[in-house]
Amino acid sequence: MESVTIKDIARICGVGVSTVSRALNDHPDINPETKEMIKRVIAEHHYIPNNSARNLKRMESNTIAVLMKGITNPFFHGMIKVLEREVERKKYSFILQHVDEEADELTVALELEKEKKPCGIIFLGGAIGHTEAALKQLNTPFVLCTIGLGQGIEKSLYSSVSIDDVKEAQEMVSYLIEMGHRRIAFVAAREDDTAIGRMRLDGYRSALESHGIPFDEGLVLYPEKGDNPYTMENGYHVVKKFLESGKDATAFFVVSDNTAFGVCKAVADMGKRVPQDYSVAGFDGIQMGDYYCPSLTTMKQPCDEMAKEAVEILFDLIEGRSGNRHRIFPAELVKRESVRRI
Amino acid sequence: MESVTIKDIARICGVGVSTVSRALNDHPDINPETKEMIKRVIAEHHYIPNNSARNLKRMESNTIAVLMKGITNPFFHGMIKVLEREVERKKYSFILQHVDEEADELTVALELEKEKKPCGIIFLGGAIGHTEAALKQLNTPFVLCTIGLGQGIEKSLYSSVSIDDVKEAQEMVSYLIEMGHRRIAFVAAREDDTAIGRMRLDGYRSALESHGIPFDEGLVLYPEKGDNPYTMENGYHVVKKFLESGKDATAFFVVSDNTAFGVCKAVADMGKRVPQDYSVAGFDGIQMGDYYCPSLTTMKQPCDEMAKEAVEILFDLIEGRSGNRHRIFPAELVKRESVRRI
Repeated sequence: MESVTIKDIARICGVGVSTVSRALNDHPDINPETKEMIKRVIAEHHYIPNNSARNLKRMESNTIAVLMKGITNPFFHGMIKVLEREVERKKYSFILQHVDEEADELTVALELEKEKKPCGIIFLGGAIGHTEAALKQLNTPFVLCTIGLGQGIEKSLYSSVSIDDVKEAQEMVSYLIEMGHRRIAFVAAREDDTAIGRMRLDGYRSALESHGIPFDEGLVLYPEKGDNPYTMENGYHVVKKFLESGKDATAFFVVSDNTAFGVCKAVADMGKRVPQDYSVAGFDGIQMGDYYCPSLTTMKQPCDEMAKEAVEILFDLIEGRSGNRHRIFPAELVKRESVRRI
Repeated sequence: MESVTIKDIARICGVGVSTVSRALNDHPDINPETKEMIKRVIAEHHYIPNNSARNLKRMESNTIAVLMKGITNPFFHGMIKVLEREVERKKYSFILQHVDEEADELTVALELEKEKKPCGIIFLGGAIGHTEAALKQLNTPFVLCTIGLGQGIEKSLYSSVSIDDVKEAQEMVSYLIEMGHRRIAFVAAREDDTAIGRMRLDGYRSALESHGIPFDEGLVLYPEKGDNPYTMENGYHVVKKFLESGKDATAFFVVSDNTAFGVCKAVADMGKRVPQDYSVAGFDGIQMGDYYCPSLTTMKQPCDEMAKEAVEILFDLIEGRSGNRHRIFPAELVKRESVRRI
């Protein structure tokens, strides 16, 4: 029989490794019932704690790491401010690690776990397209924030904070249909996206179908291979190409606000106007949408509340107050100048 | 006589403490001549190295920290990507620390030096309004990137990468004057700013004076107390208030592009148009300026080159290849739709 490790104890208890450490060290920041439960499991499994320097170091570091994918997407900047404020309020320090668009978040997290030993990790943006086995390698408590996770991953293995991307995309497209639009192009994420990009596409498709509008693959505008879909450049390029090709639509539903600004610019550069010639609807609710001319109709995510809740869940995990949980927030349809009734 | 410390040796040699450590440990990453020089100084000053765990830990951490002020200013996002890439190319790890608008960078840096022991620090944005004595407390090699430092600080105490903010602001205002504008309002940084905000104001003033236009204090629009000048909200509020007051101008020169989008929106909300009714010129050259409608005339800073150079200087300091140095880059006047001839 293999000997039981601290990871096994943590998994059996449904808590993080650092919570088991806290229980072992009689740390004050742990719920007494959780501590009793952990000690019972430890006794039952004959676990012998190994008070290695490494575990102690993890305890001392008191750092929360935020792994952010896509620093150029302004959607995350307001969220980071809230995450940082909430982490500092808990007397932990905060580090922000940028994850390159092409890099794998989980690999970065595993390196970080080894090198910096944070007490907790928040993943911001991107997609975790991983198997359960890969996710289980990460022993630091973590929360996925505004990230889609591939289908079929056991929900008890992770915590998350998000909106219902399928439902909210469906609502936006239904709104465009109510405004008289029937040829609605979707400026999409990558064709192989399995995360929020996929969900927003599913919402687009299901809104069309529920209104009896046939889905037309030619109206889904994917980025060129290698291009980041959440950039202004991408919105500009795919819509310019679409308009130059002679195909037509009366409205563009766009996978993110940032991408939507590129769409508006492409329309302007073709000598056309938003919303007189084309309606444009974004997604996310970033501040620039309010300052852009015309102001952008969008689906606003409640970033502040989501960031706050991500930190709450993370500290519940770290301090052993609860197991993994999932919180879905409602988004808000913000009607502005960029969409008109036709 | 007080005993000589590693800090004293570093100061005498004009290198960072970690470079002295490298010399003491015969680390391969140090210029042989620098090593000889340091060893000579050590012998002359009878310095007895204290190989404490703390120094070794600093050596092992191999981390470069970037302290960024103002995460909501998109000017810095492209720069961070380049900084990160360059740091990783050197096989160092990269941490990004956000500094709150109200916080003091140097205090944050001193805490970071104590807690995380980075090998080097890059300060991005903000203002270091400190005395020489305060700056000398920081023993980690550092570079100021796009930061103004108060007048009168001895240049050998720090390294920097910047543009000539006075000269470039002067050039932009001269361009507006050539386009026929004489009543040019300046949407300014804080009244007590001693950094780039002050320099851009000086450039504005000197351009007016050299063209025989009297400086009018009523055309300098400062933020409300407590407002961050580099935000869209600030640009919006001060210009809306100015226009509602019945005062007039034909052009707005704005302290940053981000602020300028707020100015454009305020003009639109007053039922006026850019550039037909008011010309607007920004500063920084962020990507949104190209995508905004109308596209924004601006003074573009060469961010990629500046970020690269900041990393080069930092590693020259860390590896003892050279002492502190200052590099000033030229900016580029980018003429777009938001300014018209009157």
